[in-house]
Amino acid sequence: MIEHSLSLPPVEGLERYADLIVRVGANVQSGQQVYVDALVEHADLVRAVARSAYAAGAAYVDVRYGDSHVRRAMIQHAPEDVLSDTPSWLLERVSTAAEGGALIMIAGEEEPELLADLDQERVGKARPVAQLQRHMRAHGERSWSWTIAAGPTSGWARQVFGEPDVDRLWSAIAETVRLDEEDPVEAWREHSARLRARCAQLDALELDAVRFDGPGTELTVGLLPESCWLGGGVETAFGVPHVPNLPTEETFTSPDNRRAEGTVRSTRPLELGGTVVRDLEVRFENGQIVDVKASTGVDAVRAQLALDANATRLGEVALVDGTSRVGRTGLTFWNTLFDENAACHIAYGGAYVAAAPGLADVPEDELPERGLNVSAVHTDFMIGGPEVKVTGIDRDGREVVIIEGDEWQLS
Amino acid sequence: MIEHSLSLPPVEGLERYADLIVRVGANVQSGQQVYVDALVEHADLVRAVARSAYAAGAAYVDVRYGDSHVRRAMIQHAPEDVLSDTPSWLLERVSTAAEGGALIMIAGEEEPELLADLDQERVGKARPVAQLQRHMRAHGERSWSWTIAAGPTSGWARQVFGEPDVDRLWSAIAETVRLDEEDPVEAWREHSARLRARCAQLDALELDAVRFDGPGTELTVGLLPESCWLGGGVETAFGVPHVPNLPTEETFTSPDNRRAEGTVRSTRPLELGGTVVRDLEVRFENGQIVDVKASTGVDAVRAQLALDANATRLGEVALVDGTSRVGRTGLTFWNTLFDENAACHIAYGGAYVAAAPGLADVPEDELPERGLNVSAVHTDFMIGGPEVKVTGIDRDGREVVIIEGDEWQLS
Repeated sequence: MIEHSLSLPPVEGLERYADLIVRVGANVQSGQQVYVDALVEHADLVRAVARSAYAAGAAYVDVRYGDSHVRRAMIQHAPEDVLSDTPSWLLERVSTAAEGGALIMIAGEEEPELLADLDQERVGKARPVAQLQRHMRAHGERSWSWTIAAGPTSGWARQVFGEPDVDRLWSAIAETVRLDEEDPVEAWREHSARLRARCAQLDALELDAVRFDGPGTELTVGLLPESCWLGGGVETAFGVPHVPNLPTEETFTSPDNRRAEGTVRSTRPLELGGTVVRDLEVRFENGQIVDVKASTGVDAVRAQLALDANATRLGEVALVDGTSRVGRTGLTFWNTLFDENAACHIAYGGAYVAAAPGLADVPEDELPERGLNVSAVHTDFMIGGPEVKVTGIDRDGREVVIIEGDEWQLS
Repeated sequence: MIEHSLSLPPVEGLERYADLIVRVGANVQSGQQVYVDALVEHADLVRAVARSAYAAGAAYVDVRYGDSHVRRAMIQHAPEDVLSDTPSWLLERVSTAAEGGALIMIAGEEEPELLADLDQERVGKARPVAQLQRHMRAHGERSWSWTIAAGPTSGWARQVFGEPDVDRLWSAIAETVRLDEEDPVEAWREHSARLRARCAQLDALELDAVRFDGPGTELTVGLLPESCWLGGGVETAFGVPHVPNLPTEETFTSPDNRRAEGTVRSTRPLELGGTVVRDLEVRFENGQIVDVKASTGVDAVRAQLALDANATRLGEVALVDGTSRVGRTGLTFWNTLFDENAACHIAYGGAYVAAAPGLADVPEDELPERGLNVSAVHTDFMIGGPEVKVTGIDRDGREVVIIEGDEWQLS
């Protein structure tokens, strides 16, 4: 019998993973309020996270469980004008969390295509806009330490492996988040330093644009002089370093929302919280998405793009190469938290103000005209891979290859 | 093969039960906001309730899942001064619900003794006092239509039957809530009318006190001239009739919090949300509990009694006889929702203002001195049974037997 070094034994492994989420992801501080958002299917992990957070000194752990089936019933039956409402208590909760709390979000649907048969216009509208706007503002103001981590479910495992093998999914996740290392915290320190070094390389180039060239893809994305590249974790306004995504393999920035030109073909399926979008193709003109195609889920994308005035503009561009632990698993996770860390990606919708320090003092309502996108939507989709070349272009038109053959070219 | 008439087939039965909760219990109206409070273990039932509520015309179904293990971690590890706090969003939610919403609470622990090994002083303190006070005020002002119903779990079934036979628990619950009737809604109409007739009998007696006599019990509870007897459902201030407990078999009133005298022995175990109290014995002097004994869980009771100034005084006296469907199952449910409907009971803590219409215009802070108890605690415990005689005493000292040999004696 061979002992699989990556397998997570039921309790010990869960505790170890919870500790990673609490201590590396959100970096919970003594006396801090901790907010956990998860689905009912994640109860075992949430309980471990709560225990770990109290062990780290949390003053109070406030858990909000979502239920995708209750959400499905809402989308099917609630009056149209209710779909985008935010209950007042939910706005109160996100506002309180943004007063220096820690926010831990657990991702991983039990039924990844639960909403696929519904009216996608209603699915798209069914977002608590006021809460999402407040959420994005807290990100921009760096007023909480936050992280998103995965909560494996049997349904998700079935989507990845064709069978509900949760243990195998646990193992794959453990590998991507470096739980297979003897000292995962130290492994994360090294990994974060490597990503931050890439940010420094990119910042030094003072790029004006990046171009993606590959099968079905010829896209140029303009960058802002006020932006910088981020990766390997960020720091709150009150000085707490944290890692917003577990895993993370990206270096990303907030692009110029007025300058995106060309076409792009998605290289991985995109799970949109109940609907899977396959074979997505998008065309940009003057920074705006003007055409969308997909073999499944296109209506869900179109509904998101219609949600507010700037949803069609870009809020993120992110670079990932073949050294990614996620990419090296060879798996499609059908979950953006993972798949976006296997390949270069872009996001339509709101941008992270934290990645544009030169615009930090600009009032929110003026940001879009300064080139930084503001929207309640933020949807990443994957556009990179071995056949996609990434080129940087500086203000003098000089070109430098950043990624080619899935390998990082800068040094 | 015999078809068991009480068994609930997995989906159809769940839908039928959810409809009963929504249409008879909370009586959800078209356009109403519906709030559901449940535990993560109740997700299947909650989903059915959400679908049923939307089918009844709910504008929005807002579900809050609790998690007893997260609560356990809080009680174990949170700073002492946090235990009784109410998060601001929770107060906002209960306040919004009290603006004419429907509130559906699902009861039924997966691990009924999960908190039994903890410091019971901390368990007692771990109550969101501000939320509970707001909740009791909404009850008094009849500003929402509300109901409590059971959500069976395997752990609860084990406590009742010695094995995790959830189907058997479902069947027992179905019987107590009249789901075995061909037309449960009509059966509830008849049952409610029967309970209301008892209230009329009791009101006509204009009682000054009730006395309980039985083994270990000799207790006289004073009544208020401003009170009335309630049972078989109530009506909101905005005119919606609803049934606050499913099942319900009681006629109850709000007693005089200054007049309770004697000793009382509990006739059934009492589940206090994670701690089971067995063989409870209580002594009253001048309306106050002055002595408490129990073979298990006594510290949990004492901690509740210490929570605020009036927790030691009575807030309810309720009469139940042997025709009770709950009593006729012969089961101890280890859950107050059921066990209180198998036998006469009293509650220490806050009273229902709705059962004292003569005091409806008195400001809340003056109610205790007028004899109506105000407290964040409301804990029912069972004191009736075949050997306990219930006697009414009117203002002239005349006695009338109300229950004897578990049979209702009034006509």
